[in-house]
Amino acid sequence: MEFTLGQLAQLLEGKVEGDETQKVSRLDKIQEGKPGGISFLSNEKYEPFIYQTEATAVIVSEGFRASKELKTNIIRVKDAYLGFTALLEAYAQFTKSALVGVEEPAYMDSSSTIGENEYRGAFSYIGKNCQIGQNVKIHPHAYIANNVKIGDNSIIHSGAKIHAETQIGTNCEIHSGAVIGADGFGFAPQADGTYKSIPQIGNVIIEDNVSIGANTTVDCATMGSTIIKKGAKIDNQVQIAHNVIIGENTVIAAQSGISGSTEIGKNCVIAGKAGIVGHIKIADNTTIGANTGISKSIKKSGETLFGYMGMDLKQFLKSYSIFKNLEDLEKRLKELEKKP
Amino acid sequence: MEFTLGQLAQLLEGKVEGDETQKVSRLDKIQEGKPGGISFLSNEKYEPFIYQTEATAVIVSEGFRASKELKTNIIRVKDAYLGFTALLEAYAQFTKSALVGVEEPAYMDSSSTIGENEYRGAFSYIGKNCQIGQNVKIHPHAYIANNVKIGDNSIIHSGAKIHAETQIGTNCEIHSGAVIGADGFGFAPQADGTYKSIPQIGNVIIEDNVSIGANTTVDCATMGSTIIKKGAKIDNQVQIAHNVIIGENTVIAAQSGISGSTEIGKNCVIAGKAGIVGHIKIADNTTIGANTGISKSIKKSGETLFGYMGMDLKQFLKSYSIFKNLEDLEKRLKELEKKP
Amino acid sequence: MEFTLGQLAQLLEGKVEGDETQKVSRLDKIQEGKPGGISFLSNEKYEPFIYQTEATAVIVSEGFRASKELKTNIIRVKDAYLGFTALLEAYAQFTKSALVGVEEPAYMDSSSTIGENEYRGAFSYIGKNCQIGQNVKIHPHAYIANNVKIGDNSIIHSGAKIHAETQIGTNCEIHSGAVIGADGFGFAPQADGTYKSIPQIGNVIIEDNVSIGANTTVDCATMGSTIIKKGAKIDNQVQIAHNVIIGENTVIAAQSGISGSTEIGKNCVIAGKAGIVGHIKIADNTTIGANTGISKSIKKSGETLFGYMGMDLKQFLKSYSIFKNLEDLEKRLKELEKKP
Repeated sequence: MEFTLGQLAQLLEGKVEGDETQKVSRLDKIQEGKPGGISFLSNEKYEPFIYQTEATAVIVSEGFRASKELKTNIIRVKDAYLGFTALLEAYAQFTKSALVGVEEPAYMDSSSTIGENEYRGAFSYIGKNCQIGQNVKIHPHAYIANNVKIGDNSIIHSGAKIHAETQIGTNCEIHSGAVIGADGFGFAPQADGTYKSIPQIGNVIIEDNVSIGANTTVDCATMGSTIIKKGAKIDNQVQIAHNVIIGENTVIAAQSGISGSTEIGKNCVIAGKAGIVGHIKIADNTTIGANTGISKSIKKSGETLFGYMGMDLKQFLKSYSIFKNLEDLEKRLKELEKKP
Repeated sequence: MEFTLGQLAQLLEGKVEGDETQKVSRLDKIQEGKPGGISFLSNEKYEPFIYQTEATAVIVSEGFRASKELKTNIIRVKDAYLGFTALLEAYAQFTKSALVGVEEPAYMDSSSTIGENEYRGAFSYIGKNCQIGQNVKIHPHAYIANNVKIGDNSIIHSGAKIHAETQIGTNCEIHSGAVIGADGFGFAPQADGTYKSIPQIGNVIIEDNVSIGANTTVDCATMGSTIIKKGAKIDNQVQIAHNVIIGENTVIAAQSGISGSTEIGKNCVIAGKAGIVGHIKIADNTTIGANTGISKSIKKSGETLFGYMGMDLKQFLKSYSIFKNLEDLEKRLKELEKKP
Repeated sequence: MEFTLGQLAQLLEGKVEGDETQKVSRLDKIQEGKPGGISFLSNEKYEPFIYQTEATAVIVSEGFRASKELKTNIIRVKDAYLGFTALLEAYAQFTKSALVGVEEPAYMDSSSTIGENEYRGAFSYIGKNCQIGQNVKIHPHAYIANNVKIGDNSIIHSGAKIHAETQIGTNCEIHSGAVIGADGFGFAPQADGTYKSIPQIGNVIIEDNVSIGANTTVDCATMGSTIIKKGAKIDNQVQIAHNVIIGENTVIAAQSGISGSTEIGKNCVIAGKAGIVGHIKIADNTTIGANTGISKSIKKSGETLFGYMGMDLKQFLKSYSIFKNLEDLEKRLKELEKKP
C-alpha cells in the first residue's frame, strides 16, 4: 500500500514541509533510508543522517531545527518517536487484518466453527469440535487438533501445532513451529530397567494477550492444565513442561526451560537460556539472569538471581571476579604457608 | 466417550457406593473435580478434598473409611492408585486405537505400503518405497521421506519429519516437530577460510519402544547410522548429532545436546540442558545433572556428575558452597597477610 | 542407482583388480561393508578390515600392498580418500539434482515465479510475489510467504518456514523445521505492568552458500535486516535474534543463542550451547567454547574464550582446576588461621 505524505501528515496530526504529493510505501531506518521510504528522527545522535538520507520523508518533532540544507521532505509532529510508533502500529494492524479468506486446500472438520474475518491458509488443519473466534488468522500448515478453543483476534502462524483440548484466549500470537500441548515427559521406571509411559490426559490453557515464540514447546499437563497466564510473553525455543504455571505479564527469553509442575509468579523477567527445576515456586517480580540455573523456590518478591546455581547477582559478580584469578589467590596462600 | 459408574466398577473389579447409573466422561484431579469427571484418592494428604469435590465419582481403596458425609459417589477397588492408572491407560489406549482412516488430501507414493488399522491425517506425506507396519498413526503434516521403515503401533505426530532411509521400530512415538535424519553438521575447512559441505549419507535407526520429544533433532550419520536403542526416552528440544549412539533405556531430559560420534551407555539419566562433547563414551548407569557439561569419557558405571565441567556431585556442591562466599575467603586471606 | 566397478573406475581414473562387471549401489564404512556396497581404505589403522569386509569393492591408494588374501574387489586410485570423497560428492550431487517436478497438491500463488529444474513437494506453499531461481528444491510442507527471493540451487527442506520479505542467496540449504523471519521478541513495558508488542517490520537476508540447521530460528529485524553473511554455517536449534549480523564463514554449533543486535565477525567458531548477549560486537576469528556465556564485546581478533562468563581459555582451566578442590584450599587457609 502507498500513501502520500499529505495523507500521513493528516493521520499523524502533523504538517508536511516539502512535497506533500510524494508517495511512500515502506518504513526505513534513517541511516538506511531509500526512495519510497519514510523514517523518523528522535535521538539527536542520529541528526547527521537526516542530511544524507535518501528516504522520501522523515518524521521530526516540533522542536527540530535543521542546521544544514535538507534534501528529504519532512513531516513535523508533536513527538517524532510516538508518531513513528503510531505509524508502525497502523501498518502492522493493517497488514494483519487485511488477511482474509480461505486458500484451498484447507481442512476443517464440519463439527468445528470459526467466526467472521477468518483467514485459513492452504494446508491448514482444524480437527473436530473446535470453537474459533472472530478475526482469527490460521496460517498455512498450522495444525489445530480436536476440541481446541481459540479466542478472537488470535494468530496461529505457519506450522504451529495446537494439540487436542488446548484453550487459547483472545489477542494471542502463536509463532511458527511452536508445539502446544504435546505429551508431558512422564515415564515410570519398572523393575527391569525399562520405563512405562504415563498417559498425559491434561491440557494447556493460554490466557489472553499471550505470545509464544517460534519452535517453543509447551507440554500438556499430566492431569489438569499447564497454564500461561494473561499477558505473558514467551520467546523462541523455550521449553515449558507439564503442569507448569507462568504468571501474568511474565517475560521469558529464548532457550530457557521450566521443568514440570513449577509455578512462576507474575511480572517476572527470565533471561535467555535460564533453567528452572521442577516442583518449585518463583515469587512475583523475580529477575533471573541469562544462563542461570534455579534449583530452589524463590520466596521473596523482587530478587535478582544469577549464576550456575542462581545466587544474588552482586554476590555472584564478586565471587566470579575472584574466581577469574583463583590462581593468584592460591599463590598468595602458598606464600603464607612458606612463612615459618 | 461416556461410561456409567457401573461399567467402570466392572472394568476395575470394584463396587459402586452411590448411583451406579451416573455417567462420567473425564478424568479429573480430586481437588479440581467437576460434574462428569472421575477422580481417585490414594494419598491421605488429599482426603479433605473428597468431602468437597464436585467430581461425579471418586475411586478409593478397600481400606478407606469416610470421616464425614460424602457428596460424591465412590468406586471402591483394591488399590485406588493402581485402579486409576488402569483407567488412564485404558483411556489412552482407546483414544489412540480409535484413530483409523485416511483424511484427504493425504499423499502416499504408490511404491509404499502401510498395514492394517492405519491412520493418515490430512496433508501427511509418505515418499517412495516406505514399509509401514500395522496400527501405525501418521498425523496431519507428518513428513516421511523415501525408503523409511516404521514398525507396528508406532505414532508419528503432527509435523514430525522423518528423512530418507530412517528405520523406526515398533511402539515408538515421535512427537510434533521432531526432525529425524536431517544432515549432520559436517563441513571441511578450506584454505581460503570457506567451508565445504561433507555429504551425509548415513541414516538414523530408532529401535523399539523409543519416545522422541517435540522439536527434538536427531541427525543422520555421516556414514553408517545414528542409533537410539530400545526403550530410550528423549524429551523435547534435545539435539542428537550425527553418529551418536544412545543406549537402551537411557532417559534424556529437555534441551540437552549430544555432539557427534559420542556413545551413551544404557540406563543413563541425563537431566535438562546437559551438554556432552563429541567422540567420547559415557558408561552405563551414569547420572548427569541439569546444565552439566561433560568433556571427557566417563568410564566407571554408576557415577553422578554435575557442574560446568561435569565433576562428582558432592565435590561440586562443596566447591560451590565455598564459591558463593569467595569474598569471605579472600578477606580471611588478607587478614593473614597483614599479620607480621 | 547402480554402477559397475568398471564404470566407477573410469569415473575415478583408477583401475579394477577383480570382477569389473559387479555392481554397487551404496557407500559403506569398511568395517560395516555389505554386498552391494563400496568402501575405501585410507588410514592404515583400518587395514585389517579390508581382509574381512563383505563390501563388494574397496577403493585403495596406489601404494597399497595387500599382506593377506583379499575376498573383496579393489579399485586402485591415486589417493583413496580423495577418490572416495569425489564419489560421495557425485552421489550427493546426483541425488539432489535428480529431484525434479511438482507433486500435487502444491500451492504457488500465480504472482510468483520459479526457474528451471524446480522441485516442489506435495503440500509446499509459496505465497505472493516470490522470485525463486533455477534448480531450487522446495520440499514437502515447506512454507514460503510473500515477497521472498531465493537464489539458484538453494534447497528448502521439509517444513522449513520462510517468512515474508526474506532474501536467500544461491547454494543455500535451509533444513527441516527452521523458522526464518518470525517476529523478533520486542515488547515495550507499560506503566500497568503489561507489555505492548512492538511491530517487527524488518526482514532476514541470507547470503550465498549459507546452511541453516534443523529447527533453528532466525528472527526478522525490528527495522532493517537480520543478516547471515556468505558461507556461514549454522547448526540445529540455534537462536538468532532480531538485527543480529553473522559474519562470513562463521560457524555456529547446535543450541547456541545470539541475542538482539549483536554483530559476530567473520571466520569465528562458536561451539555448542554458547550464549551471547545483545548489542555487542565479536571480533573476527574469535573462538568461543561450548556452553560459554559472552557478556561483553570482544575487540581483539583471534582470541579463544571459555566459561560461564567467557574468559581466556587457559585462565579458565587454571581457575576451574582450583575450583574443583576449593575445599582443600579452604582447609589450608584454616590451618594457617590456627597458627598463633
